[in-house]
Amino acid sequence: MNTPKIRVGIIGAGFVGSALVQLLSDESRHVALVDAAMAPLEVVGVAVRDPKKVRPGIDTRLITSDALALAKSEGVDVIVELAGGVESARSYVEAALSRGVSVVTANKALMAECGTALAQLANQNGADLFYEAAVGGGVPILRSLRTSLAGERIERVMGIVNGTTNYILSKMTDEGCDYHSALAEAKALGFAEADPTADVEAFDAAQKVQILSSLAFGTELRGELISREGITGVRAVDIDYATRAGYVIKLLGVAERVGEHGISRRAHPTLLPAEHPLASVHGALNAVFVEGAKSGPLMWLGQGAGGEPTATAVLGDLLYVARNKVNGRHDVPFSVDDQLLSVDAGDVASAFYISLDVRDEPGVLASVAGVFGHNDVSIQSMEQSGIADEARLSFLTHCAVTRNVHATMDELSKLESVDCIGACFPVIDGRVS
Amino acid sequence: MNTPKIRVGIIGAGFVGSALVQLLSDESRHVALVDAAMAPLEVVGVAVRDPKKVRPGIDTRLITSDALALAKSEGVDVIVELAGGVESARSYVEAALSRGVSVVTANKALMAECGTALAQLANQNGADLFYEAAVGGGVPILRSLRTSLAGERIERVMGIVNGTTNYILSKMTDEGCDYHSALAEAKALGFAEADPTADVEAFDAAQKVQILSSLAFGTELRGELISREGITGVRAVDIDYATRAGYVIKLLGVAERVGEHGISRRAHPTLLPAEHPLASVHGALNAVFVEGAKSGPLMWLGQGAGGEPTATAVLGDLLYVARNKVNGRHDVPFSVDDQLLSVDAGDVASAFYISLDVRDEPGVLASVAGVFGHNDVSIQSMEQSGIADEARLSFLTHCAVTRNVHATMDELSKLESVDCIGACFPVIDGRVS
Repeated sequence: MNTPKIRVGIIGAGFVGSALVQLLSDESRHVALVDAAMAPLEVVGVAVRDPKKVRPGIDTRLITSDALALAKSEGVDVIVELAGGVESARSYVEAALSRGVSVVTANKALMAECGTALAQLANQNGADLFYEAAVGGGVPILRSLRTSLAGERIERVMGIVNGTTNYILSKMTDEGCDYHSALAEAKALGFAEADPTADVEAFDAAQKVQILSSLAFGTELRGELISREGITGVRAVDIDYATRAGYVIKLLGVAERVGEHGISRRAHPTLLPAEHPLASVHGALNAVFVEGAKSGPLMWLGQGAGGEPTATAVLGDLLYVARNKVNGRHDVPFSVDDQLLSVDAGDVASAFYISLDVRDEPGVLASVAGVFGHNDVSIQSMEQSGIADEARLSFLTHCAVTRNVHATMDELSKLESVDCIGACFPVIDGRVS
Repeated sequence: MNTPKIRVGIIGAGFVGSALVQLLSDESRHVALVDAAMAPLEVVGVAVRDPKKVRPGIDTRLITSDALALAKSEGVDVIVELAGGVESARSYVEAALSRGVSVVTANKALMAECGTALAQLANQNGADLFYEAAVGGGVPILRSLRTSLAGERIERVMGIVNGTTNYILSKMTDEGCDYHSALAEAKALGFAEADPTADVEAFDAAQKVQILSSLAFGTELRGELISREGITGVRAVDIDYATRAGYVIKLLGVAERVGEHGISRRAHPTLLPAEHPLASVHGALNAVFVEGAKSGPLMWLGQGAGGEPTATAVLGDLLYVARNKVNGRHDVPFSVDDQLLSVDAGDVASAFYISLDVRDEPGVLASVAGVFGHNDVSIQSMEQSGIADEARLSFLTHCAVTRNVHATMDELSKLESVDCIGACFPVIDGRVS
């Protein structure tokens, strides 16, 4: 049998691109790869920004600096986009898809920004568009949502989808250190970038929530802003309180149904019960927890970043594209459910952890409790700690409407006896066993 | 567009079969299912043992008592085998596959016993054979091994794949009770069967290990016996020791590479570091932990049993069969790697936890330590506890060859000062973060 080769063009040769080239050229895996792809895969071009840089393991004859020409080349069957960024990446991906050339990308920003349009373009031209590596690095959650769970009504998806912030929060929890020293160590170890804004302010997590939500529920991918709060406000005292109360603090990306057609999408620090499967996801690991109507709870865990783990996700997509191509078919990228409505974060109900720095004087609790009360936020438990300048009130509320909780915070911040709102994080409940 | 229906015959209408019929007839999910299957799915027959039994939600006109006739029917495009057992189930599955009719089954015993032959039969006749629900209930691990990880070199698969034993061990750990009272409670709650042998003696886990191994490594499925030890010998004192030493005891199914072509497959109680992701899998949950050469650690977690969760896995397979059928193709079931050799359990190296009931008299430790020493088993730590009739020595060894450890146990059991070997369980190491 003379199966034609699948010709692969790779745009970007950073950690992931280099690891992918190595995976594809590993002689000991050659037979297994051909078996899995149903055809030999051949790298025919690698587009890079600086073609003069030495890249061990990549044949120099494959190197080009013209990414767009590679994406437009007649000699390519599939484009792997690992360049990052949105505008230029979009031009490469569109150039390929519009000619019916399938695309594998790890670009979460691109997918969150214009995934709907790209998916339509792919489908119209009979091409595949896969992006497993865009969420959870090496964790193959997206394919499971597409295939195994295609028939399931999913109620909620929650994920630890950012390794940098999970590393920082794990370090704060395990060692009792504060945010700034944990961030400094994460930078020193390469877990955080010099400018960590995208991670610590939850922009990255928010994009991943959008991608998970599109496959779990059929929401659009067109750069909508979703509710987002970073971890810069998480203090050692919050972690300490959470631990004593039987919780851990995690930055969670959440997408969930609210009523029949509502979807809430958000990313924020959350108190999770210590026995929840997500609570034991430590360090730079990622995990996605899915609650299906019939399947019950499901969780996927793995390396959320790193060249090799991410490259294995890209390779999984590439093999899928190859098999589809050999079989003369393509997958439908994702179906948009037109009836879905984005629910405002203020309308979502949840229990909350609230911490207030207050003046150490009589009557403070009474006035604070009054504000909770007339905003319809019911207190489940309260703890008074510290004295003098360190005096603090920590609350766990019963389930309350977020809008009412925020109104409570606004009003409390105006009280003379309240120095500042230290924290106001949702509490996820629901024991799993 | 007038897409032909996919006609589904279901054999077996217990918890899973009934839940599947309900999933397929749920009006609110109809559009989503047609979308996912690329065609309407229609149940055309349900074979049951007792056709007179009232089955709410199943149209009586679909009921038949002739399973084999249903499997042979010209009017069926896919057979879902949920009858269980091996011999009769095999006849139904062969009847379907030999005519090119695809099969979805939840039957782990059938697959472990004759999966290789059935897979060949399916492939020869252009049919699909899927069995996602046979391992981990609702956890879609098998499809991930088939697709997303098809290109990855997997080094080890470890799973908590039996909910009954995990419930019992979790209960013993959380409440300090002994095996017999935990088993009694598991029976009362329906987590254990009246005759729990298949679960507590690890026959069930061993079959699931064989299935995982076939997809992860390409080992055969033809009823080989693999090394197996149940949980009936796990005592409260072992759990207590493990907890103090920073471990939990879990019944693990393990399949791993040993050298270039060796595969070790086994199921036994294991000490796992408390911070390992598998350690936090509580109660009747199942989880499978995969270590890939490049992907790093990956874990899947979910409901390992129950009608509805298991039915969602069956449905995922059914949708996949339907899409393949609409596209005129089928998947290759699994590839056997002829070069693989089964490694004898005695040749595998591991650290061990060993507990001995001994006489409370001077010189015992010296004679015991001597036996370890000349069998080449090096002791990492030792604890002496209890007095008089309760005297006990607990050891953690360094990594040792299992054969040497067993020789040590044989010799120790002949010492006058040793009353009995209380426990001898492997310790899995390797922190994950």
